[in-house]
Parts: sequence; structure tokens; C-alpha cells
Amino acid sequence: MGTDSTGGDGHEERRAAPSRRSLLGWGGAGLALGAVAAGGSVAAVEAGSGTGPTASSQSAAVPFHGVHQAGIATPVQDRLHFAAFDLTSTDRAEVTALLKAWTQAARRMTAGRTVGSGAAGLAEAPPDDTGEALGLPASRLTLTLGFGPSLFEKLKLTHRRPDALAELPHFPGDNLAATHSGGDLCVQACADDPQVAVHAIRNLSRIAFGTAAIRWSQLGFGKTSSTTPGAQTPRNLMGFKDGTRNIAGDDATGLAEHVWAKASDGQEWMAGGSYLVARRIRMNIETWDRAALQEQEDVFGRGKVSGAPVGKTHEHDAPFLKAMKPDAHVRLAHPDSNGGTRILRRGYSFTDGTDGLGRLDAGLFFLAYQRDVRTGFVRVQRNLARHDALNEYIQHVGSAVFAIPPGVRDADGWWGRGLFA
Amino acid sequence: MGTDSTGGDGHEERRAAPSRRSLLGWGGAGLALGAVAAGGSVAAVEAGSGTGPTASSQSAAVPFHGVHQAGIATPVQDRLHFAAFDLTSTDRAEVTALLKAWTQAARRMTAGRTVGSGAAGLAEAPPDDTGEALGLPASRLTLTLGFGPSLFEKLKLTHRRPDALAELPHFPGDNLAATHSGGDLCVQACADDPQVAVHAIRNLSRIAFGTAAIRWSQLGFGKTSSTTPGAQTPRNLMGFKDGTRNIAGDDATGLAEHVWAKASDGQEWMAGGSYLVARRIRMNIETWDRAALQEQEDVFGRGKVSGAPVGKTHEHDAPFLKAMKPDAHVRLAHPDSNGGTRILRRGYSFTDGTDGLGRLDAGLFFLAYQRDVRTGFVRVQRNLARHDALNEYIQHVGSAVFAIPPGVRDADGWWGRGLFA
Repeated sequence: MGTDSTGGDGHEERRAAPSRRSLLGWGGAGLALGAVAAGGSVAAVEAGSGTGPTASSQSAAVPFHGVHQAGIATPVQDRLHFAAFDLTSTDRAEVTALLKAWTQAARRMTAGRTVGSGAAGLAEAPPDDTGEALGLPASRLTLTLGFGPSLFEKLKLTHRRPDALAELPHFPGDNLAATHSGGDLCVQACADDPQVAVHAIRNLSRIAFGTAAIRWSQLGFGKTSSTTPGAQTPRNLMGFKDGTRNIAGDDATGLAEHVWAKASDGQEWMAGGSYLVARRIRMNIETWDRAALQEQEDVFGRGKVSGAPVGKTHEHDAPFLKAMKPDAHVRLAHPDSNGGTRILRRGYSFTDGTDGLGRLDAGLFFLAYQRDVRTGFVRVQRNLARHDALNEYIQHVGSAVFAIPPGVRDADGWWGRGLFA
Repeated sequence: MGTDSTGGDGHEERRAAPSRRSLLGWGGAGLALGAVAAGGSVAAVEAGSGTGPTASSQSAAVPFHGVHQAGIATPVQDRLHFAAFDLTSTDRAEVTALLKAWTQAARRMTAGRTVGSGAAGLAEAPPDDTGEALGLPASRLTLTLGFGPSLFEKLKLTHRRPDALAELPHFPGDNLAATHSGGDLCVQACADDPQVAVHAIRNLSRIAFGTAAIRWSQLGFGKTSSTTPGAQTPRNLMGFKDGTRNIAGDDATGLAEHVWAKASDGQEWMAGGSYLVARRIRMNIETWDRAALQEQEDVFGRGKVSGAPVGKTHEHDAPFLKAMKPDAHVRLAHPDSNGGTRILRRGYSFTDGTDGLGRLDAGLFFLAYQRDVRTGFVRVQRNLARHDALNEYIQHVGSAVFAIPPGVRDADGWWGRGLFA
């Protein structure tokens, strides 16, 4: 990332200007009212008025400013570093100071710049930036902040806690570990380069010293969902395409109905925000790998190679649910089996080495955004947890929910300002 | 990866043919005597006779066959999945059957193909391939096999164990965990797409069922070394460029002297092979991040932003060791401080979530290839472990050594044939 020395940003010149200045994401529907750092200053720039995705470059910057936070409807990046933090201070002034400092750092890092003066500061002081992303482009980094239910308790803000931020009930089969659950704050870092995502979380963690500390974190090496219409759905570690019929990032109607919180939903400060459910889903890889092809396809309700719903030819063909087994995953997760419920999925595959029994500790780090946790994930998961044939091969081992405040509108704004106003 | 159904490989047609057929790596020096799958059959193809790296594509295939195994002198790929296995059988016939099956699977996967018939087999049987890499190109996948010292004991082959495969002594500061140390076998999977590397290890693990099981494994998300002359050295998680003066993949003289084992070294079956030292090096990230810039630069003996040796301007300028502090890392690791010792480094950054104290479990998964462990890593590490200023900020927490047999020459060959002949 650029080193902003006083003598001008020499690094900036070495990089292709277009990739530093391009606006990514969806032009239409008022979604990408964004700003992007250009030439060292952060200026409010209105996005184009196209109706589809703009040409994307893996090294480009995604606008930080906007009505909504980036990293939700943004075309899904390749890699993830997700971190849940616990407050180590319950002083509201300290927490707001942290959120302001985080916002400023996020504004710079998502634009491909260093935190503060980078590694070009005083020799006698620790560098402002840890440096491992020096020289790397913005890589479509997005940083998405959330507030866990416990934050409202700790800061005595329970009257401002949205009802839509419901704690999840215990679902049948849950085997949740505290080491991968909960958190007062979260930051979802997505980027096309994992080093850029890891760098971002690390620097935010460093800035938080004294006010918040990482409770748990999760790397995701491969995206399993797409929010780009018509794109190939990536395969999960079971070898299947799942989440083919996701809410697209340019589906303004679907997003408005199922993803973005409204002022009229109860808490005005959440208007334009959303709610995130994170679930660490371990796959019993070794058992799955010994299941017959027919069983695997029956479980999902799709062809393994084609990704097509049972009885259909192509991945994006509309599924005929009654052709599937009653306990097929696609059938049970479909909106038609859940009163029309749709959630926006952004999950990633993970592999965290090996457990004590020589089995891969691998699976899906499920991330889903919705307008209300109760009518979103809870509704679908009640159905899945009871009936899904897939449950024989998976286990939910981590869980967290977060309120995702609306986007930061301009250079004066900061994450969560509405909550503390 | 391609699905080889009997009716022809429909998937093959969807992919760009050139990326399936290109030969990557170094053309000269007899290194890339390789074969690559072309049109569904594995044919011996001699590499070109260029003297530098050929044009590279991130989706291309690296030849599996050759005098040396791929994955050592091969230009370093972006991502790593490394696995150490323990034998669960000491029947030599079973182990050789495993090595033959692994070789066949590796030959196919490195060419961008599925294991066996992929997911297009009998509905009543588990698919031959787990499927998560279906549709992904070869991504420069290399699979590199090694034998640990314990394998020679278990299979009663101690008379064939090379002296150069020495167990490492205890170094000052070592704090090794059995959960990341040792192993009878290892496979290093490197690829530009992490899903392709993870897929390969998982499928080899599956094939090994009943004969060997994963003892530990490690994902690496970012390469920290380059074997391509003139290329930018990637930064490690301390934000520094380390290993700038690595042995280049086209430096036939350097490789012959420092990396490739010779028949005259003692064990004829190892000719063309090498020896791997793997060390999991945890970084005390939080402590490092609070160290002053001057201290950080003194510790490494390089500028943080420029990567240049102390007193020099550019990364690749020859270091003047006496300008550095006596305990600077670059000075102590330099061949001139170690009787001319050089090792080929191929390490990767890792971040494995968070430890129980809220600190990132992150660092360097160090991988180094050499002609003799005793005169390679041991010599350098004796020096570093005693004196290196970096030791205040790192800890070696995992360790393993492996004999890397020579390459598989052709379609009749298999990994380690010389050892069992």
C-alpha cells in the first residue's frame, strides 16, 4: 500500500492509476453513492448510473463511503479474514474514539493506502502501519463493521438495540464452541489478496489496543457464493454448487425487501444497515467422501458435476422442488419452503489444519445478511436443522450475530455514529 | 478440474486449451524434462531450451515428470497446503501401492484433471474425486513428496537412509509442539489457487486411507520468497522483505551445488532429490508492532519500505554486512557468515486464527531445500538461534525434516521407486 511520506507518495506513481481510482460495484439503484481516495484526498464522488456491474479489476478499490457499508452487495471477493472483538473498555467515549480511528484507517486501507504515515514516520516510533501490504494494490478490500448484542449491554445502550438483532435459539445439532462464537464487535475483511485482508484486520486490532481485543478470527480461502448474476457459483468443500439462487448485488428490489434495514423497522439509526449471521460449519469431510455419488446428489438436490437441480440440465435452471427428496438441502432451503424468505449469502471455505484425530478441520464459514435475523436465518435454519439430509455430514460449531450499521456517507462520518448520536 | 467421462471431456472444451497445455518453469539446464497431460493422455513432452522463465499464466500446468520433483526450483506459487502423514501400516507392499496410487493421482491433478473418473462414475459408488476443484484450472499446482526419518525405521530401511537426512538438534529458543512436528511422509502442495492446493491434499489423504493418515497440516496464504531472479520479494508478516538473495530457479550452478543431492553423496537412489526442512515460526506480532521503526530495521538489517540492505538504496543491492549491527538477521543468515552456505527458501505466511490470549496465531511457515540438512539449515540455524536479534520477536513452534526423492521420469515411474527397488 502507498507510503504517504511528506515528500509525496512515490509509491502511488509506481502503480497503475486506473486501479487506484476505479469505482467498483453496482452503479445503479443509489447503491454506490461512494467516494474513493484520489490523489491523496478523500473526495465525495458519485458513482455512475449504469445498471449492471462495472468492469472489475482484481486490484481496484471499492468505494468506502456510501448509503450502505461495502462488503455486502459488493461482488464477492476471493478471500476473507473475519474477526470478532470484545470490548476491554466500557467507556462510551473510548469506544467512539476507537470507531472514529477505525473508520479513518478503513477509509485509507480500502483505498490501497497505508494506515497513518505508513512506515515512513519517525525512526524512534513504531510505524503507523505494519507494512506487510506495502506494494500491494487495494485488491477490492472491503471492511464491514458490526455490533454484537453484548455491546448494547456493556455500553448501556439496550434501548437502542434493534429487535431484529435477535440472539439465535439453540438449533438441533448445534455444538457451538465459545472459541468461535459471539463478540461485541466484528469486522469482515474481504479482498482478492489474502495478505491485504489479513493486514487490515491486524492493523485494526492494533489500533484497538486498550479498548477492544480480538475474541476469535477466521480465515476463509475460497468464496462459496456469488452476488453477481449469471456468474459461475463456486464449489464448496463438498464439491457442490450451493447458493446458486443468491440475492444479486444489483437486485435493488430483492435487497430492499430482504437485506437493508429500514427506519420504519424500529431503530432509525439502523436505516440502510443490515444484520449478519456468522456460523462456522464443520464438514465431516471423511464421511462425506465415502458417500455414494447418488447419495450426495440426493442430499443436495443437485447434480454434482452440472450443479443443475434434480431433473434439470443447467445450474441456473429453476428447481422443481417436488422432484427432489423431501429432505434435500436445496428443497428445504428454498424460499418456497420458508414462506418466501431470502438471505444474501457470502460464505467462504475454510481449512484450519487437522483435528486430533487426523481429520481435516474444514468446512464452510457461513455469512448471511438479512433485514431481520428472526425472519431470515432463524426461519430457514429451524427448517434445515430439523430435516436437512445434509445434517448427517455437517455440524455447526461456531455462531455469532451482529447489527451492521449503515454506511459512512462522507469524510466527516464514522462507523456507528447513529448509534451513539 | 476436468471431468473425464466416457463420452469425452465436455469440461475440457470450456477451458482455454493453451492454459492446459503450456509448460511452465525453467526451460534450460535439463530441469524441465517434463510431461503434461494433453488431450486426455499423458505424453512425454520435452520442454523448450530457453534459458529463463517462460511466460507464465496463473492457470497453467507445471510438468509433473522430470529429473527433479516440481515444487522446488519451480517459480513459487501464491498458496500452500502442506501435510505430514504418519504410516498406519508398516507393510512395505502396502506403502509402495500407496506411493503408486499417489503418483497417478498427482500426475492427473497437476495437469488440471480429476482423480480417477472424477464425479462421473457409478451412482452407487463414492466419486473418485471429491469435486471441489471441478471447473478450476491446474493453477500451477505442484505436489512434492518427502520421506521422514521415522519412515526408514518403520519400514526397516535404515540402511537406505541418507546421512544428509539428519534429525535437527535442539536449538536455543525452540519450543516445538508435537502437533506441528515430524511425520513419516509429507506432501507439499503449492498452487496459485488455494482451493486447488487443498483439493489435492484432501484427495491424497483420502487415497491413503488404511495406509497413512494426516499427522498435521498447514495452510500458507502468502508466499514470502521468490525463486524468480529480479522479481519483487514478497513481504513477510513483519512487513519486511526477507530472503531477497534466494537461490534462483534458473541458477543451475547454485542448484547443483546447494540443492540437488548427488549419487556420490552416499545414497544413489537420492540422486536428483533434495532435503526439506519445515519450521513453523510463530511471530510475536503484537510485540513487533510496538517496536520502533529503527529497531525493526536494525533487527533485519534492511530498510522497511525500500527493502534495501543497511546503507544501500535498492532491494537487490549487495549487502555490506559490516554496516549492519552484529546481530542483524540478514548479516547472520548471509552465506558469508556461514561458510558459504546457501539454502533455497520457499516459505509462506500463515494466520491460524487467534490464541487463547487474543493474539494472532500468525507467522512464517519456513520451507527450505538443501543438498544436506547438516551443512544447510543446521549450520545457518546454529548461528541464528544463538545470536539473531530477531529471536526476541519469533519462536520456532514446529519442525520436520524430509528426504525429497528425485522426480518421476515418465508414466511408468512412481514416487520413491528408487528407495524400494
